[in-house]
Amino acid sequence: MVTQPSMSPLLDRLTLPGDLKRLDRDQLRRVADEVRQETVEAVSATGGHLGAGLGVVELTVALHRVFDTPRDRIIWDVGHQAYPHKLVTGRRDRIRTLRQGGGLSGFTKRAESPYDPFGAGHSSTSISAGLGMAVGRDLAGRSNAVVCVIGDGAMSAGMAYEAMNNAGSMDSRLIVILNDNDMSIAPPVGAMSAYLSRLISSKPYLSLRHLAKDIADQFPRPLRDAARRAEEFARGFVTGGTLFEELGFYYVGPIDGHNLDHLLPVLENVRDADSPSGGQGPVLIHVVTKKGHGYPPAEASKDKLHAVAKFDVITGAQSKGKPKAPTYTRVFADTLVTLAEADPKIVAITAAMPSGTGVDVFEKRFPNRTFDVGIAEQHAVTFAAGLATEGLRPFAAIYSTFLQRAYDQVVHDVAIQKLPVRFAIDRAGLVGADGATHAGSFDVGYLGALPGVVLMAAADEIELRHMVTTCAAIDDAPSAVRFPRGEGLGLEMPEHGEVLELGRGRIVQEGSTVALLSFGARLGECVQAARELAARGLSTTVADARFAKPLDHDLITRLARNHEVLITIEEGAIGGFGSFVLHHLATAGLLDSGLKVRPMVLPDRFQDHDAPAKQYETAGLTAPAIVATVLGALGRDAAADVGSARA
Amino acid sequence: MVTQPSMSPLLDRLTLPGDLKRLDRDQLRRVADEVRQETVEAVSATGGHLGAGLGVVELTVALHRVFDTPRDRIIWDVGHQAYPHKLVTGRRDRIRTLRQGGGLSGFTKRAESPYDPFGAGHSSTSISAGLGMAVGRDLAGRSNAVVCVIGDGAMSAGMAYEAMNNAGSMDSRLIVILNDNDMSIAPPVGAMSAYLSRLISSKPYLSLRHLAKDIADQFPRPLRDAARRAEEFARGFVTGGTLFEELGFYYVGPIDGHNLDHLLPVLENVRDADSPSGGQGPVLIHVVTKKGHGYPPAEASKDKLHAVAKFDVITGAQSKGKPKAPTYTRVFADTLVTLAEADPKIVAITAAMPSGTGVDVFEKRFPNRTFDVGIAEQHAVTFAAGLATEGLRPFAAIYSTFLQRAYDQVVHDVAIQKLPVRFAIDRAGLVGADGATHAGSFDVGYLGALPGVVLMAAADEIELRHMVTTCAAIDDAPSAVRFPRGEGLGLEMPEHGEVLELGRGRIVQEGSTVALLSFGARLGECVQAARELAARGLSTTVADARFAKPLDHDLITRLARNHEVLITIEEGAIGGFGSFVLHHLATAGLLDSGLKVRPMVLPDRFQDHDAPAKQYETAGLTAPAIVATVLGALGRDAAADVGSARA
Repeated sequence: MVTQPSMSPLLDRLTLPGDLKRLDRDQLRRVADEVRQETVEAVSATGGHLGAGLGVVELTVALHRVFDTPRDRIIWDVGHQAYPHKLVTGRRDRIRTLRQGGGLSGFTKRAESPYDPFGAGHSSTSISAGLGMAVGRDLAGRSNAVVCVIGDGAMSAGMAYEAMNNAGSMDSRLIVILNDNDMSIAPPVGAMSAYLSRLISSKPYLSLRHLAKDIADQFPRPLRDAARRAEEFARGFVTGGTLFEELGFYYVGPIDGHNLDHLLPVLENVRDADSPSGGQGPVLIHVVTKKGHGYPPAEASKDKLHAVAKFDVITGAQSKGKPKAPTYTRVFADTLVTLAEADPKIVAITAAMPSGTGVDVFEKRFPNRTFDVGIAEQHAVTFAAGLATEGLRPFAAIYSTFLQRAYDQVVHDVAIQKLPVRFAIDRAGLVGADGATHAGSFDVGYLGALPGVVLMAAADEIELRHMVTTCAAIDDAPSAVRFPRGEGLGLEMPEHGEVLELGRGRIVQEGSTVALLSFGARLGECVQAARELAARGLSTTVADARFAKPLDHDLITRLARNHEVLITIEEGAIGGFGSFVLHHLATAGLLDSGLKVRPMVLPDRFQDHDAPAKQYETAGLTAPAIVATVLGALGRDAAADVGSARA
Repeated sequence: MVTQPSMSPLLDRLTLPGDLKRLDRDQLRRVADEVRQETVEAVSATGGHLGAGLGVVELTVALHRVFDTPRDRIIWDVGHQAYPHKLVTGRRDRIRTLRQGGGLSGFTKRAESPYDPFGAGHSSTSISAGLGMAVGRDLAGRSNAVVCVIGDGAMSAGMAYEAMNNAGSMDSRLIVILNDNDMSIAPPVGAMSAYLSRLISSKPYLSLRHLAKDIADQFPRPLRDAARRAEEFARGFVTGGTLFEELGFYYVGPIDGHNLDHLLPVLENVRDADSPSGGQGPVLIHVVTKKGHGYPPAEASKDKLHAVAKFDVITGAQSKGKPKAPTYTRVFADTLVTLAEADPKIVAITAAMPSGTGVDVFEKRFPNRTFDVGIAEQHAVTFAAGLATEGLRPFAAIYSTFLQRAYDQVVHDVAIQKLPVRFAIDRAGLVGADGATHAGSFDVGYLGALPGVVLMAAADEIELRHMVTTCAAIDDAPSAVRFPRGEGLGLEMPEHGEVLELGRGRIVQEGSTVALLSFGARLGECVQAARELAARGLSTTVADARFAKPLDHDLITRLARNHEVLITIEEGAIGGFGSFVLHHLATAGLLDSGLKVRPMVLPDRFQDHDAPAKQYETAGLTAPAIVATVLGALGRDAAADVGSARA
């Protein structure tokens, strides 16, 4: 038996990140190469986010070499660029469990490692969190560094600006590394992105000589007199950093983020300029990287292999299983295109997720009616409200979890004004490998509480087509349709959707003892549960509520009056559809004479990443769980019951 | 009888805004003076927002003179600066009904006037809405102007930046007027504000000669080559507008916002540069005004009479009634100060509302432990999360309605990470004259749905003291306490609060037939209702739940088992406390044998401004409504019942 020589001789024998301090430049360079190689191999086995991590390999090695982690805090904005960071911070042995059930998270996570001071799945949070840590350090009289690494795409989000605006007026030393790869998921949009491109194109990377000179003056606080302004504008021609400087940051850059010879001295200088007393304000280091750097298939790919399935390391070919059916996303997109062919007033808005939301499909057909506003959900929703005031029919396609970013805008700018903005809420419910940060758990509650909103959930892809069509037809109120991640059921699709009657559900099958009332894509589980209940002699009605708002009071009344047990089920947290049904039942007196009603919702805990089917099993929202709930309500023992039914 | 000569001879005989087009400069100046006078008089009679409106009198007159409203859209950011606008757009006869029940709204409101194209009570929405209107115009091939007027304070909000970032990369002509009064409610904070101050202080107002020259070139799109950069930096010394120009705006300013001779030509030039095809991108006009301008008592006041009670026009003295008791806000602030005296880890965060939240009281005592981050709720919450990771005990004091701006940050940065950020949620429930935009209706639902969050509501000011004390003691989970606007009950306060047992309510009085379970400050109404029910022979238990999460299951079980009727009541919308109670009752089987349970929540509509007591009466959340609900549940006729009880 021949033993293969290790591909990672350095990683194999080093204890990281501590040993990085003992290596010379050349060894560091080789560590970076090995980290890149392992990142590719790990993701080839697990799937996940690849391009972003490959772009920050050298930066990761440099940061852990220069800074004393975990005492110094490194906060990776949107944790999906942190796979190399995980490799060098004691998680190498588990790196092939990334995003698998029970394995490492695909993002940074406080509970996972002391080297992850802040968890992030959503973008643009790092400067706020870092500023909090920097201020906390100052109040405690500590002297550690706080370093935020944020991508240029994340800079379109308002909260990054809010944080810079706050940091720029404070004395706390905070180091922000702007990782500029001109590419987040899609090519970035917006004026800030254009500005950064101009910065980079207007001059070469800082040379070592410039670096030394630039940093020599120990980052004076911006002076606010004319002399300072003169110097600043003179600098403008050299470093082009005036926008950040106007916001109170000391700007250094741009720097080649793949060149350790440039990265290390800059980081060391910034580190050493930091004094225990703080008091020197924030620094922004503009680092230019290439997403997917060093792995040819990623470099060659249009999206730089942002997020991938398992793939072949040599070719980069992804082994995506053949889809059994079109995704809900695709059905939404195709339906919207069909509607928009006949209705020039339909427009689509995405917040930096054109492909994830299917808005890219719409854009191909209607480029002038498509608006990608960047990672900017707040603006996206109020922009859509503005469009609606002019008589357009805007569809804001935003994941459930990201719509949380725009809740006030939904309330204040859309719902209070009764503006007919349509929300296409993808990724409703549990979402699998992305885990708790991306679960779409709360939208039914937070939208259903708003007066006047029409709120639907699709039981399958045909229903989704009907509901998108229904949204398009609602001109006097906000409306929303939620639908899950992934593939539909493979149903044969009608060419056109129907406009559904508002607030009217449907009976899927009639029974007499048990009623299962589903809101959303658990309907299939209900049908399966009904079959099992029938086998136990329990005649079961299955209904699809379609609407959480307005509620189908007639349907609910009939179900309550004519059945012994009523189960509601939804892919959402407490306070949503089940609560609305209970509220109606209580208010209408339908509980007064005893009804065994059981609302089934997501459990009251944040669920970790896992396969979606497994997640729903854990959540207790599957057919067996429905059966068990029914039997429990009837006081029947599940095991005994099976026996008697079989006997 | 002697007839007084009119103080407003021009306003009396003009039809506005149309007639403004026919006036000469001198007459316009006089119209402005009359509008200012009437604004002061109207607010002296109604109370409301004064300083902001006085600062934009000339701007209002100039905008309506130059633009063709309502065809051209004028969007006032945070509508409270729009009283002069209301005066000149057909609402003069109702101006003394401002903020009164049934009267004019204190903000812009679409339903109120075609001259209000977008309603706004929350700040920083105007650029997003305006960009939507501009794009809508372009798609429809129309040629009207869209003008957003936004204050410098509002520029600290992320959504304003998101909108600028998007607008700056688009061709749509949009006019943004930055109304820079260096003073929103409190003195503004943040780097942007400092930048604007430098802009203004670094050079005089544009002279007419400069204006003409500046505007002559018809706003070329920013060129992106070196020649352009050279010109831009040269301009920098003159106009200082590089930050906005880097973001894709054409910058004009600063301009004296009280000088019609300067305002009118600039606005005319910008208007006329607008072509039907759009295609010239956004313009930012930097206008400098003085909040409270032209009314000496406002100019002399520290807060420029931002928001006032009724007052004497001559002296500016406000006729605030003697408070009967300290406000909830004050009790929160005093309690926090007391706690912080003993605990150096307690820090306070406000998003530009130091006096509204009571954080100003804390700041006086602990300036280094107080953080006003500007109008930046998203950042405020994640900044607090960062502080919590460093072992501090942050209290984020944010109104219920504004916390909606930071919902994702509460979910993603605080709750998922189980970080002990404390939320002091003022203005919970209905808030009176500020109306629907400021109602705190949804927080119980949107927070209570989150795993692991501790959520309390204060029944009175003593309870508030206990709950703030309890929050301070919770180091392993996020916690929140909600409390209403206005004065407490005047109870004698204990010197120190108690740490409450988590998830444990309290029985206020014991009865046997009816149970009233209150969450929040409706407890007094419950006690009163219990008295009335007792008079009708119905023995009533009154309980204060204290916690919506964790729920007091024992208490709820006892109430359900031992009473015929169970009422829940809260100052919040559906999906909140009542829903959690119903969910528990259903899940635990406590409804199976019949319980007359009635959840009482805010009605499913947005309620207009009115006195808070009147609002709650309309909402059906008063003692008589409770009594009626109980009697209804029992199938007893209220009128007949009273008779029999009296007989």
